[in-house]
Amino acid sequence: MEELSSINGEGFGTSTASLDAAGAVTLDYIDGGITAVSGVRASGVYAGFRKNPDKNDLALITFPEGTVAAGVYTRNIFCAAPVTVSRAHTAHGHARAILINSGNANAATGTEGLAVAEQSASLVACALDISPEEVLVASTGVIGVPLSLECIRAALPCSVAALGPDDGTDRAGGNAAARAIMTTDTKAKEVAATVSLSQENGTSVTVTVAGMCKGSGMIMPDMATMIGVLTTDALLTPAAADAALRAAIDVSFNKVTVDSDTSTNDTVFLAATGVSGGDVIDVMHASFPVFAHALAQVCEKLARMIAADGEGASKLITVEVTGASSASDADLVARAIANSPLVKTAIAGHDANWGRIAMAAGKSGAQFAQEHVAIDIMGLPVLRQGLPVVFSEEEAIKRFEESEIVLHIDLGAGNAATRIWTCDFTHDYISINADYRT
Amino acid sequence: MEELSSINGEGFGTSTASLDAAGAVTLDYIDGGITAVSGVRASGVYAGFRKNPDKNDLALITFPEGTVAAGVYTRNIFCAAPVTVSRAHTAHGHARAILINSGNANAATGTEGLAVAEQSASLVACALDISPEEVLVASTGVIGVPLSLECIRAALPCSVAALGPDDGTDRAGGNAAARAIMTTDTKAKEVAATVSLSQENGTSVTVTVAGMCKGSGMIMPDMATMIGVLTTDALLTPAAADAALRAAIDVSFNKVTVDSDTSTNDTVFLAATGVSGGDVIDVMHASFPVFAHALAQVCEKLARMIAADGEGASKLITVEVTGASSASDADLVARAIANSPLVKTAIAGHDANWGRIAMAAGKSGAQFAQEHVAIDIMGLPVLRQGLPVVFSEEEAIKRFEESEIVLHIDLGAGNAATRIWTCDFTHDYISINADYRT
Repeated sequence: MEELSSINGEGFGTSTASLDAAGAVTLDYIDGGITAVSGVRASGVYAGFRKNPDKNDLALITFPEGTVAAGVYTRNIFCAAPVTVSRAHTAHGHARAILINSGNANAATGTEGLAVAEQSASLVACALDISPEEVLVASTGVIGVPLSLECIRAALPCSVAALGPDDGTDRAGGNAAARAIMTTDTKAKEVAATVSLSQENGTSVTVTVAGMCKGSGMIMPDMATMIGVLTTDALLTPAAADAALRAAIDVSFNKVTVDSDTSTNDTVFLAATGVSGGDVIDVMHASFPVFAHALAQVCEKLARMIAADGEGASKLITVEVTGASSASDADLVARAIANSPLVKTAIAGHDANWGRIAMAAGKSGAQFAQEHVAIDIMGLPVLRQGLPVVFSEEEAIKRFEESEIVLHIDLGAGNAATRIWTCDFTHDYISINADYRT
Repeated sequence: MEELSSINGEGFGTSTASLDAAGAVTLDYIDGGITAVSGVRASGVYAGFRKNPDKNDLALITFPEGTVAAGVYTRNIFCAAPVTVSRAHTAHGHARAILINSGNANAATGTEGLAVAEQSASLVACALDISPEEVLVASTGVIGVPLSLECIRAALPCSVAALGPDDGTDRAGGNAAARAIMTTDTKAKEVAATVSLSQENGTSVTVTVAGMCKGSGMIMPDMATMIGVLTTDALLTPAAADAALRAAIDVSFNKVTVDSDTSTNDTVFLAATGVSGGDVIDVMHASFPVFAHALAQVCEKLARMIAADGEGASKLITVEVTGASSASDADLVARAIANSPLVKTAIAGHDANWGRIAMAAGKSGAQFAQEHVAIDIMGLPVLRQGLPVVFSEEEAIKRFEESEIVLHIDLGAGNAATRIWTCDFTHDYISINADYRT
């Protein structure tokens, strides 16, 4: 994922504290995914990228004329062809369609791969009678293998025919798309919610914010990791869409770490159809922070689903850091803990191992003093002023029964805070990643 | 481990290329460990820190008057009491004894722990009729539990009585010490070698360089990781001992990563008895680079033993990076690959997975262009100019039978290079670290 583009100086929502302070944004979660948003149509079909025809592998999503779009992409130097194409297309600020395939990442495929990504956008443009620049593409799956344009050409008519209605009622189309982009995910990941935005004339407009994604646990041949699509019927400017998306990603998808690796294909799109009407929301509009916060909450839900569905994971782990001297120090400590194989295996073993948490924090490079540190595991104090606290092992084991394990460390060095999501390391993780043979 | 103290500007030996260029230093490896060095006596006894009396847990090493000493210590903010004490004592540049216990790290033990570490040095000083400042201490084992001074007091007469002869022939004493400091190590780690140093009068003196260490794989209750003792009969100044030790650690122990974690107790000592006689070797002496290189080679041997003996490891992995634009970029890439759970599990699964290596390099933050990258696995070209090369899967599987797996990546971005050692991630790693209960 790319760096946060700063919305208001220090960067909107780089700590949970500031996010919570923005406060008081209430979302009503509703059933559904990306097609809960008016103007959005979607389908998922089988195009032949995967060997198993029972698993669809091509998602098509369309939007009405005037839809504003933004994208955020992987920072990995090994970046896939569709990332290059979509990065250029989202620069225009608008889109009418998104095509995503699973089963092949179109990465490490050179100039031919780039041509295939461009041509697939052209095929979609032809089929929908729009311009190729209005088509965004993303791929996930095996890398280093040419992506077949013929599969896309053959499947597209079927994709278009399968698109559902665009009135926000099409539960099936959004779900089919969410399932078609899955790789090692065990569950489709969809969220939808409504939020009320105040208008300049004193009234309010209810908008829908929704999303789907596929997870970040990696396995050969499914190297490609996080792909997300956010949709909304809010009427945004391209700048507002871009700013809200980057801010939301910074506190959600960028705070998920399954195995500390980033991929060639990480991509998140936001499409805003504007069907809700009302004021045009730019970054200066009073309702912009409310929309941005709503988008961040939807992204957080999706991010937690990714962490909980990490390869072989049995637990979602939330690492909370408070008392850091800076936001970057908070992030360093949270990532050091979340990426520590020793912490992740301890949690798989239901071991309230404060020593491994302390050690990970200590090596992170963040500035703090050992004697000011406090650690809690599932609300149980285990370290105070840098020294171990006697706790009930029985109580700790009981709390480890929960499906979400919360680790909290206060560094006693300042006021910055953050929160990171990860999962435990189990025998299944090794099985999935080692026992697989290319 | 601490930062390298620069010996000659850019730092001696920060790349294997410069080390090799220093070249032409021939060591004769001999049987034995730290007591292969004249003037060094050692013992290993049972003091009661471990529950199992079949496993000794207290090592004592003594040196003659005038022995020069240096120490390098953990950079982890959570630093153990013996580290604080030894850091102060090595500042004097001399030592007469080293006391190391396993089974208890004396870490996260507050001011009481510090007093115990200081008092244990005093007990050794009394027993040997030397000054407490001439005693270095190190501990490894469970953290957050008080270290019993009584165990040390009771065992010390036995430790002193068990010391072997000091003429370089005592194989048993050095081995007993090497075994007494083991925690999760499956093998004692000892190296000894001789090297010839030219004198200013045109003659030469043969000196012995030796070492022992315990490994860095971590497991609760044995949180503490790397402890090493290097000995030599070379006649060094304190500044030369310190500079040679830091340079050697930079290309050896600092290039080992088992699970990316550093501990509260990491400590490496160098003791130079000076018994060899001949010229006093300062950093300006023509033979200093030869001695420093010899010490680095001994440390490299020990470092490779640590990586190969990582918890649950089935393979030693050597990650070689060439063509980096700077030494720090080379290090970033090598560590990203060596710490990637996806790379480590792939190797456990005998999977020639160039994609995971490329992805780890791409996320490292180092500067290079995808289309200039080449990757070899066990000498087999798998990626050229950023694109996959067809290779024989059968041949790859055959090469994976070796106990050491060499991954080589050339970034095509410059001339800097480095080498890092790690081990694979197996089911046993998860078992050791997750199934253990505190």
